[in-house]
Amino acid sequence: MQRIQLSSDLSISRTVHGLMHLSSWNLTKEERLALIKEVLDTGITTFDHADIYGGYQCEALFGEALALEPSLREKMEIVTKCGIVLESPNRPAHRSHHYDTSKSHIISSVEHSLKNLSIESIDLLLIHRPDPLMNPEETAEAFDELHHSGKVKNFGVSNFKRSQLKMLETYIDQPLCTNQIELSPYHLENFEDGTLDLAMEMKTPLMAWSPLAGGRILTGQDDKAVRIRKALQEVGNEIGTEHLDEVIYTWLYTHPANISVIAGSGKIKRIQSAVNAQSLKMDAHQWFQIYQAVLGHDVP
Amino acid sequence: MQRIQLSSDLSISRTVHGLMHLSSWNLTKEERLALIKEVLDTGITTFDHADIYGGYQCEALFGEALALEPSLREKMEIVTKCGIVLESPNRPAHRSHHYDTSKSHIISSVEHSLKNLSIESIDLLLIHRPDPLMNPEETAEAFDELHHSGKVKNFGVSNFKRSQLKMLETYIDQPLCTNQIELSPYHLENFEDGTLDLAMEMKTPLMAWSPLAGGRILTGQDDKAVRIRKALQEVGNEIGTEHLDEVIYTWLYTHPANISVIAGSGKIKRIQSAVNAQSLKMDAHQWFQIYQAVLGHDVP
Amino acid sequence: MQRIQLSSDLSISRTVHGLMHLSSWNLTKEERLALIKEVLDTGITTFDHADIYGGYQCEALFGEALALEPSLREKMEIVTKCGIVLESPNRPAHRSHHYDTSKSHIISSVEHSLKNLSIESIDLLLIHRPDPLMNPEETAEAFDELHHSGKVKNFGVSNFKRSQLKMLETYIDQPLCTNQIELSPYHLENFEDGTLDLAMEMKTPLMAWSPLAGGRILTGQDDKAVRIRKALQEVGNEIGTEHLDEVIYTWLYTHPANISVIAGSGKIKRIQSAVNAQSLKMDAHQWFQIYQAVLGHDVP
Repeated sequence: MQRIQLSSDLSISRTVHGLMHLSSWNLTKEERLALIKEVLDTGITTFDHADIYGGYQCEALFGEALALEPSLREKMEIVTKCGIVLESPNRPAHRSHHYDTSKSHIISSVEHSLKNLSIESIDLLLIHRPDPLMNPEETAEAFDELHHSGKVKNFGVSNFKRSQLKMLETYIDQPLCTNQIELSPYHLENFEDGTLDLAMEMKTPLMAWSPLAGGRILTGQDDKAVRIRKALQEVGNEIGTEHLDEVIYTWLYTHPANISVIAGSGKIKRIQSAVNAQSLKMDAHQWFQIYQAVLGHDVP
Repeated sequence: MQRIQLSSDLSISRTVHGLMHLSSWNLTKEERLALIKEVLDTGITTFDHADIYGGYQCEALFGEALALEPSLREKMEIVTKCGIVLESPNRPAHRSHHYDTSKSHIISSVEHSLKNLSIESIDLLLIHRPDPLMNPEETAEAFDELHHSGKVKNFGVSNFKRSQLKMLETYIDQPLCTNQIELSPYHLENFEDGTLDLAMEMKTPLMAWSPLAGGRILTGQDDKAVRIRKALQEVGNEIGTEHLDEVIYTWLYTHPANISVIAGSGKIKRIQSAVNAQSLKMDAHQWFQIYQAVLGHDVP
Repeated sequence: MQRIQLSSDLSISRTVHGLMHLSSWNLTKEERLALIKEVLDTGITTFDHADIYGGYQCEALFGEALALEPSLREKMEIVTKCGIVLESPNRPAHRSHHYDTSKSHIISSVEHSLKNLSIESIDLLLIHRPDPLMNPEETAEAFDELHHSGKVKNFGVSNFKRSQLKMLETYIDQPLCTNQIELSPYHLENFEDGTLDLAMEMKTPLMAWSPLAGGRILTGQDDKAVRIRKALQEVGNEIGTEHLDEVIYTWLYTHPANISVIAGSGKIKRIQSAVNAQSLKMDAHQWFQIYQAVLGHDVP
C-alpha cells in the first residue's frame, strides 16, 4: 500500500475508504466491524467521514462498530468534515440547509463527531465546502482551540478553489494539508480551473472524491461516457486489466499531484480494485488517450 | 455609526453618501449644502465622487456648496476617482470614451477634482476602472507625486479583479486601501470570481456600489428579482424591518469582508435606511435564505 | 531595432522571425541562407523555432542553411520549444499526439534540436504547452541538466496560464524569462484572463504569436474582422501608414507589457512591416478605438 505524507505526523493510505453511504448498506454492528477489518486487511488505513453523511448517522454507525474492538483505532487514520448544516431530525435546531463555519459550529460539530465515532481525536478535519459567509478569523480561532485541546490533529479543506484556499490560509496558523475535491476522468473542472495547479504549487496532496464519477463513467449512456469507456478498454488491454475501474484509478494515481482516491463502496471487491490499481503502470500516451477521450478532441 | 479603518490615517463611515447623480437632483447651491448637513447628521462622514460624474459636473456642484461653509470639510472624508476619459463639452480635448491611467492624466484629473471640490487634499483617490493599457510604472509615478505633494492622502482601486490588483500592487509604494466594486444580492459576480476572497486575503475592506442593484431588486419583474424580494420579505419579518432596502444593506454589512455601502440617493430618507440597517442582525440561516434565492437553487 | 531584455545574458529583437512554416516555403538551401541574411539585415536577430515545426523538419532546414555560413550564429538568438509529441515518420517511436514534459523527453528533444539546428547551444528553450500531466520535479531536473551542460542558456514557457506558470516556477531554479502566447487584436483571451497581468506583475516580457491572427484580421469576412479593419484603417490614416499589418504591430508594441512580435513570413516585405511599425506612435484614444472595435462595444 502506497502512503501519502500529509504532514509531519500524518500519512494516509493512497486508497481511502469512504463512508458516505454507510447507512444505506444496511449492515449490522457486527457486519460493519467485519467490513472495517476487511478494509484494513487490504492495507487501507484511512477512513473518510463527514458529520452530515447519512443525515448525521454514518459516523455513529462506524463508531458503534469500532467500539466493539477499540484497539483497531490505532491502526487507522480518521478523516471527517464540518461546515454544512442540514435540516434533520438528528439536529432539530437546524432551520435550513446552509453553511456554517463559525467558531461555535465547528467546535460543536467536532464534539459530535468525536462522540459518534467513539474516538478521542480526529486525525484530519476538513471544512466541507467554501462558505461564502466565512469569517476566517472565527475559523482560525476554532482551529486553534481544537488543535490545542488535541481534539483535531490536522486540518484541511474540501471543494475549495484557489482564491478561497489562499484566503483561508492567510488567517490560520495550521497548514492546510489537503484539499479533497471531485476528480475523475468524467469531471476535469479541477484540472482546468487551476485547483490542481495550486495544490502542486503548494506541494499539498489532493484527495479525490467520486473517482468513478458516481458510476457515470462505467454505466452512463451519454457520448462522453461511451467515449471514455472505449479509451479505458483500450488502455486496460495494454496495461493488463479488464476492470475499467482499475484503469480509472490508475489514471488518477499516475498524475504527479499525489492524489489519494476515496473508494466509497460497501463491497470489498470494489474497494480491492482501487488498491490493485496501485500496481498498474500507465504511460503518457495512455494517459492522454483517456484525457483526450474526455475532452472529445485532441489537445492543441 | 460604524467606522471602517482603511489605513493608519483614514477611516470611513460604514455608510457612504454617493454623489454620482448629484447633477440630476436639480438642487440649488443652498439645497445642496442643506443635504450635506443632513447627511452628516445621520453620522455619515464619507462622500463618494468621481471626476466624470454628471459629465464632469458633480464634483463642482458639491464644491460650490461646500464653499458656502468651508469648515464642514474637517468633518468629512472625500473619495474621488480618475482614469476614465469621456467626450464632454467640459473636456474639449477628449476625442473619445476610453481609459487613461498615464501619469499626466491622473495628475491633471486630481488637480481638476481639487479645484472643483474646493478642497486642498483628497482623502482617497481610486483608479476607476482596470485599464487594459495601464502602464503601472506611470501610475506609480503619479501616486508618488500626488502623495508627496499632499494632494492625495490614500489610494485605492475600483472594479479591479485579482490579477489586475496584484499587478498594480507590485509597482506602487502606497497600499491599495480599498477596492470599490459592484456588490448586491442581485450581482454576485464578485463573490464568485475571487474578488471578495482576495480582499479578505489582503485584509482590505471593500466599498459596495449599486448595493440595491440600481433599484432592480426592489422593482424588477424578472424571476430573480421576484425570488429575491420574497426572501427579503421573509427575512425582514424575522429581523424586524419591513423596508426591503434595509434587509439588503444588512445582508452586505453582515458579511465579514468589512463592506461599506454607497447610498447614492438625494433623499435623506433613503440614505437613512442604509444607516438604520447597521443596527439590524442577520444570522447564517437568514443570510443563506437570501443567497440561495439569488442563486435560484440550494448550495451543494 | 528595439531590443527586449529577457535575462542578464539574453536580449531579443522586438521583432522576431518565426520559422513555423519554413518547410512550406519550398526554398533551396541557398535561398534559405539568403532569407536569413535578409532578415538579419532588417535588424532582426531572433529566430523562433519548435522541435515539431514542419513535422520535425523546420529546425533541420534552418540548420542546413546556417551550416553554409556558421559565423552567422554569433549574430542571432535562437529560440526553440519542446513538450509536444506528434506522430511522424521522423519520430517512429511516437504513438500519438500528446504532451511530454518528462526529463528524458525534454533532454532528448533538445539534443535533436541542437543537431538539427547545427548549433552548440540554445539561447532560449520554451515548454511549448502546459502539460496536464507535468511532473514539475522532472521538468526542473531537465532544466538543471541542460543549464549546467550549457546546452540551454535560458528557459521560458508558451501558452501558460497563471496557475500553470506559478506552479512550474515553484519547482525550478532558473527564471522563466518569457511566456510566448497568442496575442492579436482578434484574440484578446490573454488580455482578459489575467495572463498579461501576471507577466506585468512578474516583470516578464511576452512574445506574441499569430499577431495578425493568421491573416483573419486582414482577410476575414466576419463582423469582427470587418469592424477591426475599419478601425485599423482610421487609426492608420492618423498615425501615417496605409498598411493594416503595421497598425496591428503598433497596437501590440504600444502596450506596456514589453511585447515582442513573431513575424512568421517567408517574404521579407511582410517581415519588414513588423520592423517598420516600431517607429510608429499610437495614443490611448487610437489604441482604444481598435480595442473597442474588437470588443464590439464600448468599455464601461
